[in-house]
Amino acid sequence: MNHMNTMDKINKFRDDRDWRQFHNEKDLAISISLEAAELLELFQWKSPEEVRETSIERIKEELADVLIYSHMLASNLDLDIDEIIEAKLEKNNIKYPVDKSRGNKEKYTKL
Amino acid sequence: MNHMNTMDKINKFRDDRDWRQFHNEKDLAISISLEAAELLELFQWKSPEEVRETSIERIKEELADVLIYSHMLASNLDLDIDEIIEAKLEKNNIKYPVDKSRGNKEKYTKL
Amino acid sequence: MNHMNTMDKINKFRDDRDWRQFHNEKDLAISISLEAAELLELFQWKSPEEVRETSIERIKEELADVLIYSHMLASNLDLDIDEIIEAKLEKNNIKYPVDKSRGNKEKYTKL
Amino acid sequence: MNHMNTMDKINKFRDDRDWRQFHNEKDLAISISLEAAELLELFQWKSPEEVRETSIERIKEELADVLIYSHMLASNLDLDIDEIIEAKLEKNNIKYPVDKSRGNKEKYTKL
Repeated sequence: MNHMNTMDKINKFRDDRDWRQFHNEKDLAISISLEAAELLELFQWKSPEEVRETSIERIKEELADVLIYSHMLASNLDLDIDEIIEAKLEKNNIKYPVDKSRGNKEKYTKL
Repeated sequence: MNHMNTMDKINKFRDDRDWRQFHNEKDLAISISLEAAELLELFQWKSPEEVRETSIERIKEELADVLIYSHMLASNLDLDIDEIIEAKLEKNNIKYPVDKSRGNKEKYTKL
Repeated sequence: MNHMNTMDKINKFRDDRDWRQFHNEKDLAISISLEAAELLELFQWKSPEEVRETSIERIKEELADVLIYSHMLASNLDLDIDEIIEAKLEKNNIKYPVDKSRGNKEKYTKL
Repeated sequence: MNHMNTMDKINKFRDDRDWRQFHNEKDLAISISLEAAELLELFQWKSPEEVRETSIERIKEELADVLIYSHMLASNLDLDIDEIIEAKLEKNNIKYPVDKSRGNKEKYTKL
C-alpha cells in the first residue's frame, strides 16, 4: 500500500471490511475518547520517565488508535486533516502571540 | 509556512513559544484525553445528523486539538505518525481478516 | 461490614491493603476518568435500549468503579460526599430556576 | 431538603425541572465521562500539592458533578448506589486478597 497516503490506507482498511455503515460520527467521537483513555492509562501511577522505558510499544499502538479514529471521523465529515490543523494553529497564533507567550506557563496552560 | 509539513508546523508553533519545556508526556496524554472529551461534548444530547448541521466548525477545532496534541506527544517520543498508523493497520489486518470481518458488526465492535 | 457506611467500607478496603500511599490525587483523578471511559464503552455502538438488555451487570461494576475512586479522592481531600453534592445542587438551583428550566432542553443542555 | 437522602435530592432536582425525559442512559454515560475530564483538567500541568492549594473549591464542584450524573444513571437503571459499591468491593476482596496485596504496588496497579 506504499503509494497511498495515510488517509487512503485507513479508508481502504474500513472499506475493505464494509464497516463505514456502522460508523456514525457520535460513536466515532466516543471511540476517540476511549482510545485516548487507553493511551492515558499507560501513564497512570508512573512518572513520564518510567513510561518511556517500559511502555513505548503500547504507546505507539494506543496513539495510533487515537489517530486512526480521528482520521475516520474526519473522512466521514469530509474534513482535510492537514487543513484543520493548520487553521487551528493560525487561530492559536493570534490567541498566543509569540512575544507574550514565550516561555510563559500562564499563557501556556490556557492554550 | 506552506513548504513545511504538518508536524513541522506544530513543532514550530510550540518551539517559537519555548513551550516544550512544559510538555512532559503524562500531561500531554491528559491533554489528548481532555480534547477528546471536548470533541465528544459536541455530540452529546444530539443525533449525528443534528451535529453535522449545527457544529461542524466547532468539530473542526476540537478534532484539530486532538490531532495537535497527538503530534506533540509523538514528537516528544520520536515517533513517526504515519509509521505508527501503518503498523497498527497491519496488526488489525491480521486480527480482522477481510473475509471474516466484511460487514460483520460483531468483529467490528471488537476492533 | 454491615454497620459501616459506604465511605468507611471503601477506606477499610484500601487501608487493609495499605494502598493509600500510592494514591496521589492526580492519579486518582485519572482513575475516575478511565473508569468513566470503561462505563461509556458499554454504551458504544448501541442504543440505550440494547444496553439495558445486554449489559446491566457490567454497568453495575463500571459505575461502582467510578463511584469508588470518587470516594477515594474525596477521602484524600477530606471532602464529604453528601455535602459537596448538596452544595452543587444548591448552586444549580440558582443557575437553573425551576420556572425557567422546566422541560426546557435549551437550559438543560447547558447544565 | 434536609430530611431527604442524597439520591432523593438529586431526583427532586431533575424532576422539578422535568428533565428526566432528556436523560437517556447513553448520554448520561457521556456526561459522567465529560465531568471526569473537567475534574482531571484541574490536575493537569500541576503536582498534586499545587492542586490542593489552589483548586479545592473547583475540585468540590467537578467531583460533585461526576457524582450527580452517576446517581442519575443509577436512578434511571434502578440501581442502588451503596449496593453496587459493596458488591464491587466484595469482588475486589476476592481478586486482591489482603495478605497478597498489602503494600504491593504490582497488585495495586492492576486493580
